[in-house]
Amino acid sequence: MRTVGVIVEYNPLHNGHLYHLQQSKKITGADAAVAVMSGHFLQRGEPALADKWARAEMALRAGCDLVLELPVAYSAQAAQWFAYGAVAVLDATGVVDTLCFGSESGDLQALDSAAEALTDEPGELAERLSALLKEGRPYPAAYTAAAQQLLAARGRAELAFALEQPNHTLGLHYLIALRQLGSRIAPFTIRREKSGYAQSDITDAAIASATALRRLLTVSGSWEELAPYVPATTLAILVREAQAGRAPVDWESFARPLFHELLRSDAAELSTFAEVTEGLEHRIRRIFEDLGDFKVGALLDRLKTKRYTRTKLQRTLLRILLGHRKQQLTPEKLASGVEYIRVLGFTPKGRELLHLMRQSASVPVITSAARGHWAFLELDARASAIYALAFRHPDPAAALRDYKQPPVMIL
Amino acid sequence: MRTVGVIVEYNPLHNGHLYHLQQSKKITGADAAVAVMSGHFLQRGEPALADKWARAEMALRAGCDLVLELPVAYSAQAAQWFAYGAVAVLDATGVVDTLCFGSESGDLQALDSAAEALTDEPGELAERLSALLKEGRPYPAAYTAAAQQLLAARGRAELAFALEQPNHTLGLHYLIALRQLGSRIAPFTIRREKSGYAQSDITDAAIASATALRRLLTVSGSWEELAPYVPATTLAILVREAQAGRAPVDWESFARPLFHELLRSDAAELSTFAEVTEGLEHRIRRIFEDLGDFKVGALLDRLKTKRYTRTKLQRTLLRILLGHRKQQLTPEKLASGVEYIRVLGFTPKGRELLHLMRQSASVPVITSAARGHWAFLELDARASAIYALAFRHPDPAAALRDYKQPPVMIL
Repeated sequence: MRTVGVIVEYNPLHNGHLYHLQQSKKITGADAAVAVMSGHFLQRGEPALADKWARAEMALRAGCDLVLELPVAYSAQAAQWFAYGAVAVLDATGVVDTLCFGSESGDLQALDSAAEALTDEPGELAERLSALLKEGRPYPAAYTAAAQQLLAARGRAELAFALEQPNHTLGLHYLIALRQLGSRIAPFTIRREKSGYAQSDITDAAIASATALRRLLTVSGSWEELAPYVPATTLAILVREAQAGRAPVDWESFARPLFHELLRSDAAELSTFAEVTEGLEHRIRRIFEDLGDFKVGALLDRLKTKRYTRTKLQRTLLRILLGHRKQQLTPEKLASGVEYIRVLGFTPKGRELLHLMRQSASVPVITSAARGHWAFLELDARASAIYALAFRHPDPAAALRDYKQPPVMIL
Repeated sequence: MRTVGVIVEYNPLHNGHLYHLQQSKKITGADAAVAVMSGHFLQRGEPALADKWARAEMALRAGCDLVLELPVAYSAQAAQWFAYGAVAVLDATGVVDTLCFGSESGDLQALDSAAEALTDEPGELAERLSALLKEGRPYPAAYTAAAQQLLAARGRAELAFALEQPNHTLGLHYLIALRQLGSRIAPFTIRREKSGYAQSDITDAAIASATALRRLLTVSGSWEELAPYVPATTLAILVREAQAGRAPVDWESFARPLFHELLRSDAAELSTFAEVTEGLEHRIRRIFEDLGDFKVGALLDRLKTKRYTRTKLQRTLLRILLGHRKQQLTPEKLASGVEYIRVLGFTPKGRELLHLMRQSASVPVITSAARGHWAFLELDARASAIYALAFRHPDPAAALRDYKQPPVMIL
């Protein structure tokens, strides 16, 4: 079975995602599609608007055959670790032949040249990175600058475009991860049409970014407004989740526990959390003086500076909310890759893939958080419990769902 | 100025408290009364139903002249440390001549004999205590047993009554603390009339325990029901606080952040909090399986065993809620006593006392949390912020009130 891998968040799954999925299968000649999907907390440091089982169901209804969870250790990270974790999951299945991702240019060759240059001599990149970090630059900016320096030093400055747009950057890091992992997965890219990654206006009759759709929902308060832009199956799932009090979830849903955590911690305590770097702990403590109300949005507005992007700040607040400490998410731990594959859902074809994976997978394949005691799995189970506390009528059964919920099956 | 000290929580201040205060001044011949009062979190590990400035005002309206805050490090403790902290505050003022407390028997001489026996040879008590703790007994039970053994060994078994009723136990520990601190404050006791400490039924037309009053309020939902049992000033303050959305606060007001904290922490993390001892961290983690809903009351019901009293469990959950770690509340740190005196409110006579305290106080006298950086003061300021998050419309100004609010002045 020829199988394509896609890396997704589906927050929510919309017509643009559907197009990408269909094109991915078409250009790779795939019979089946495997999605690795962020769980409850996403790459830009935000909670998903609906839970991971609901979004896995959207994926299955839209043509994915198997949905695997990207551990939160990787999902709420800058491009480098997000990409590394996601590619590691796909690679560990042993059944994925191709990886297909969207990019602004659709120029795989140029992206792969950049990836090659950046992985060729990891020592040199690490040295440049280390020097820039010592200058006090934040990690993502330092990485970009180090990579640009290295490309320029090799006379390939024209490849620096790969570091400048979000989908290029993600794509570049998928390619780097494939190389680092020595994966046999072949990459493909599709030029992104219509709507930009985080574009917040709707400019097309049928394709809008997930960001624009979430904004539309916030403004109108009505799920029906999304109908032109999402598959009917997505809309039905969203409406069902909303009726059950499980959606929409957003950052404001976590205002009380987040502010509680920020107010009860001194700077020393704050500095133990992942992403809290460069004195951000002092800035957070000081900010309350000028804060008008206990809204996460207001806090982010106040914290934002040229140095700290909103995305970086959201990831930081998320690690504090989830209680993830620096020592739990060291580069060494992240680089050691995935220790298990967590199945969120499958179709009949996905079941066949799971059958094949009994032989091919390089790590255990599990269907519930009760099936293992890996550190990253524990973080996922706890993140799910924290997410469930944001529901309209939170209850312990929902909080422990990670231990009990079987995968979503579309049979 | 002859000055009596009283140790109070006033949750809320009722007719029984008023009687005790009036009698205390009468039997000690005092011109002025100084109350040391628990702040936002109380001896039995509960939040106060109204904030500390409201309760300080109740105290001033009822005849106290100066209200000082008992730091939360001491206030949410078993009798031994609660008493030690409270007596240390009174002693540090240098203006308090007498301490008057309620007791079931009113027998000061017997209580003081017990206190003398228990302080006479601290080494012997510590040895017995240490042996019992090694057997695995919880601290308060071990202390009681060690003290009983010591009294029996000295042929004073009849004094063991002092360890058996809550006001006897508190009184005993006030007397022990006076001896440990070498205080010149002279103790008095008043036999408690009418209503027992935690008695939950109302048995008298004008005197009911604070516990009974809080229950009455919960059942009726109407502050007016309290009118027969509290001074008119108390009622007016409570109604005002309720209208402002600041009362009533109870444990359920903290359900979301408490459950968030419990669900995001693993057992190792939980074990770092003060009061989390004897494997309670594992019991807390396991309990969610059987919990029907996210109510603190339901959690306490499930956690309660013969070994863990509800009070011990409330104190434990409180330290987790407040983020107080074992290392912040070691016996050594508690035994070192108070480093400052925090003024919550005063009358004109109280202002005279404050004037005298410029000479007499053994530690700095402060009127706001902005006036110092002592570790226990930081804990108080953060506890106030956490308390303010439970208000109906929490806002950052309320959360930072500890740094800005001047003392309540009744002039």
